[in-house]
Amino acid sequence: MKILFIGDVVGSPGRNILKENLPHLKTKYRPDVTIVNGENAAHGKGITEKIYRNFKEWGANVITLGNHAWDKKEIFEFIDDVDDMIRPANFPVDTPGIGMAFHKVGQKEIAVINAQGRTFLPPIDDPFRVVDELVNEAKARTPYVFVDFHAEATSEKQAMGWFLDGRVGGVVGTHTHVQTADQRILPNGTAYITDVGMTGPYDGILGVEKEAVLRRFQTALPVRFEVPSDGRTQLSGVCIELNKDTGMAKKIERILINDDHPFFH
Amino acid sequence: MKILFIGDVVGSPGRNILKENLPHLKTKYRPDVTIVNGENAAHGKGITEKIYRNFKEWGANVITLGNHAWDKKEIFEFIDDVDDMIRPANFPVDTPGIGMAFHKVGQKEIAVINAQGRTFLPPIDDPFRVVDELVNEAKARTPYVFVDFHAEATSEKQAMGWFLDGRVGGVVGTHTHVQTADQRILPNGTAYITDVGMTGPYDGILGVEKEAVLRRFQTALPVRFEVPSDGRTQLSGVCIELNKDTGMAKKIERILINDDHPFFH
Amino acid sequence: MKILFIGDVVGSPGRNILKENLPHLKTKYRPDVTIVNGENAAHGKGITEKIYRNFKEWGANVITLGNHAWDKKEIFEFIDDVDDMIRPANFPVDTPGIGMAFHKVGQKEIAVINAQGRTFLPPIDDPFRVVDELVNEAKARTPYVFVDFHAEATSEKQAMGWFLDGRVGGVVGTHTHVQTADQRILPNGTAYITDVGMTGPYDGILGVEKEAVLRRFQTALPVRFEVPSDGRTQLSGVCIELNKDTGMAKKIERILINDDHPFFH
Amino acid sequence: MKILFIGDVVGSPGRNILKENLPHLKTKYRPDVTIVNGENAAHGKGITEKIYRNFKEWGANVITLGNHAWDKKEIFEFIDDVDDMIRPANFPVDTPGIGMAFHKVGQKEIAVINAQGRTFLPPIDDPFRVVDELVNEAKARTPYVFVDFHAEATSEKQAMGWFLDGRVGGVVGTHTHVQTADQRILPNGTAYITDVGMTGPYDGILGVEKEAVLRRFQTALPVRFEVPSDGRTQLSGVCIELNKDTGMAKKIERILINDDHPFFH
Ligand SMILES: [Fe+2]
Ligand SMILES: [Fe+2]
Ligand SMILES: [Fe+2]
Ligand SMILES: [Fe+2]
Ligand SMILES: [Fe+2]
Ligand SMILES: [Fe+2]
Ligand SMILES: [Fe+2]
Ligand SMILES: [Fe+2]
Repeated sequence: MKILFIGDVVGSPGRNILKENLPHLKTKYRPDVTIVNGENAAHGKGITEKIYRNFKEWGANVITLGNHAWDKKEIFEFIDDVDDMIRPANFPVDTPGIGMAFHKVGQKEIAVINAQGRTFLPPIDDPFRVVDELVNEAKARTPYVFVDFHAEATSEKQAMGWFLDGRVGGVVGTHTHVQTADQRILPNGTAYITDVGMTGPYDGILGVEKEAVLRRFQTALPVRFEVPSDGRTQLSGVCIELNKDTGMAKKIERILINDDHPFFH
Repeated sequence: MKILFIGDVVGSPGRNILKENLPHLKTKYRPDVTIVNGENAAHGKGITEKIYRNFKEWGANVITLGNHAWDKKEIFEFIDDVDDMIRPANFPVDTPGIGMAFHKVGQKEIAVINAQGRTFLPPIDDPFRVVDELVNEAKARTPYVFVDFHAEATSEKQAMGWFLDGRVGGVVGTHTHVQTADQRILPNGTAYITDVGMTGPYDGILGVEKEAVLRRFQTALPVRFEVPSDGRTQLSGVCIELNKDTGMAKKIERILINDDHPFFH
Repeated sequence: MKILFIGDVVGSPGRNILKENLPHLKTKYRPDVTIVNGENAAHGKGITEKIYRNFKEWGANVITLGNHAWDKKEIFEFIDDVDDMIRPANFPVDTPGIGMAFHKVGQKEIAVINAQGRTFLPPIDDPFRVVDELVNEAKARTPYVFVDFHAEATSEKQAMGWFLDGRVGGVVGTHTHVQTADQRILPNGTAYITDVGMTGPYDGILGVEKEAVLRRFQTALPVRFEVPSDGRTQLSGVCIELNKDTGMAKKIERILINDDHPFFH
Repeated sequence: MKILFIGDVVGSPGRNILKENLPHLKTKYRPDVTIVNGENAAHGKGITEKIYRNFKEWGANVITLGNHAWDKKEIFEFIDDVDDMIRPANFPVDTPGIGMAFHKVGQKEIAVINAQGRTFLPPIDDPFRVVDELVNEAKARTPYVFVDFHAEATSEKQAMGWFLDGRVGGVVGTHTHVQTADQRILPNGTAYITDVGMTGPYDGILGVEKEAVLRRFQTALPVRFEVPSDGRTQLSGVCIELNKDTGMAKKIERILINDDHPFFH
């Protein structure tokens, strides 16, 4: 069971590099499931139905989200009609949408869970307790479970990795938009990386025009953040291979495509 | 001008792997200056005079610090007697210690600056303004300038990188204890990495016993954090080479030594 | 049904003024139930069994707590043996202690609920959801319900007041240690005040030595906070009278005793 | 020297009750200077030139601001043309506007300073250092100095009060929108209150529609906050009288006008 995961796609630059590279990545990695974090897909904030459909057409099987899930109001009109776009599971009960999706792979299926951290982020329900319940639910159906933990603090993300070590095939972090170099397989078999990184502008700050972000830090005045419409781009991802029998990880490989790390296909 | 920088050394596990590997790293990289972040060197919190002296004996030329600088009260007794251990420069005026050191390399010298971010960290003085002034001061003496920006948020760190691009040879982030994979040379010549990562226990959470951190997240009760006294360890660093004439970067290389990335020397 | 509530008792100065004044307050207000917030009773941090017993001897019927509940480890040894000292109900399931107490008043009883906010405080469970459940549970037994909402943000506290308006007799805020002047009866009958204020040193900062707090703000260095052992003191409280039949509030009166507001008894 | 200060005026409900009551308040208190905090005057966010002019016409001499100062972009077009509307002085150097105003009272003048806290608010420059400098500058011209410290944390506000005790006539807090009951004259002569409270809707949450705020707390979803256009209103203020010779306070009196505290004029 091979999983291809693409980190936070930011605006049209992110969508473009994703569309262009997904076929080549599929040729190279031959994933059984392709998961894309789309919380920043629409101009850096939220996702629209059209973008969701594009992601599916381009080859994504499951879309995950995060704290920006709700930025485009349009999401409330279609999130409850789809079962392959998930939002953080630990939003309050009654929140639109769901936090876990099952994707069929031949006779098998893989559970994909999305959760959100609380350190340096708004207080919602306990991600450890909610993920614990969902993992139990998933494991009753399938040995293959994958978690996108959308969180800011490295401590909270590593804690989630160790918490689930031996129970799920992979725990990957998203949200900081910077890929970390700590991909590994934890002692009990869970593939882990603190952050997959961002897919979008390569010369901005987290995908946003750098001048605006810098001005914000220097002036403390309100500044409008825009995703640059042109310029170099980058794609960040990870490929995880799970043992067919146990569902534990055999391999985790970082994917980073930009001018400094060209992708030869 | 070659710079070897070692990320946050955590407790005795960090000190041990540093002591063991520094000679081999020096043989391999032949740095002109070796800089070690020591904010967590004493049981994970602060630094003592003895540890400072050890770091010097083992080959560090400059020690940088961070938000944990003051955790061992002993620091106030010797920080003003040394000019090669620096604390974040943007602490308030009148704070003990200094925020910039000059290290002689033959006829030349390199300026090392330490600053601290304010996003998700206590409010101190503006790091951009303070670093701007120190860089100007440094550049009046030498073309070689290096910055350890101790900060939590990826946005603030990338902002500092772009802010100084073309003015200093390198900007490296510390504090999150997780190495990022985004090392690069920015368009105007500044080597940059969002976080160098931590030097210490490999199977904890940021260098601390994982059970305690996880219990804290799950219970919200006070928990005592300890650096594990045994177990596997890791060393994180970066080597940056500056152009002799311009002081801008020619190369940046990540260093990561652990059981999954063995160091062959 | 008359409720006397005393805000966060800080250290020995707070305990002393409480002990001295409680008899006079009881004479004046003739409460059916006396509730004391004791989260800071032991040197400003936490509570001990001895202090708990003192509070009971001096006339408190129920003790409430807050974010400092756990600061004295001793609490874990007796909290599960008592049913009249409650901690915030929205700590995770399995947290020692309980979040609601019932106090007998003749043939009747009053439910006292303690909850904690999440804005500018550590993330725990949703206080609105948890309090909602407890209020329903309480109302099945008695028309008299009182809530101590321990929270920082004025918005979160007012939100709790409006959330419970018409369902409970009183919602009082604690934690900021400064009494607010907004006591009122909300349109549907709930007595409300954003913060009852603190019982302890009058010339410190929130009950702590002012020099230390000021030094912390000015230096950003670690500073040890101590409750001053002598000096002038203050008592802050509130008296709420509930309608015998409906359990809704007839009256809310602020109590503030210090050198500028002497208490004549 | 008598000072009338009106706390954060929120939207049109706040402006209306201000306009209606200011003449009566002036008749009652006969202030030498009238100061109005206008950071929320335009629909709860920022201020426009028209509103600024209205405040002046209605009798305000100096307008202070806070963290919402910049919410209406229009402010950048007129803030540098006026010397009687001030923004927090500890915004970075080069921020538009000024942080201190002098108001003539016959042959004398009073300095009005605005500063902003950093606890639970964005990091800007150190308010203690900046206010210290401005107070020195002011005292070189006049014995009469007044400070509006716009801050969230009760600790930071009390710290500012004690910091300036004996140097300025009054330190009043703003920003939490809830009036505190701790008005007093500190031992060395400075009138102090932690928060003056808000002028605007009486049945909302901090001046905003309560349903929206409550929904935000309960759902963690984006919610649009609106100032209710009708309903009951409230005015919050304080009157401070300074000794003619020393500039220290003789008296501080809270002003709170709403249906529960009617104003008889
Ligand atoms: Fe994102
Ligand atoms: Fe995010
Ligand atoms: Fe560190
Ligand atoms: Fe740090
Ligand atoms: Fe307290
Ligand atoms: Fe508290
Ligand atoms: Fe305000
Ligand atoms: Fe404000």
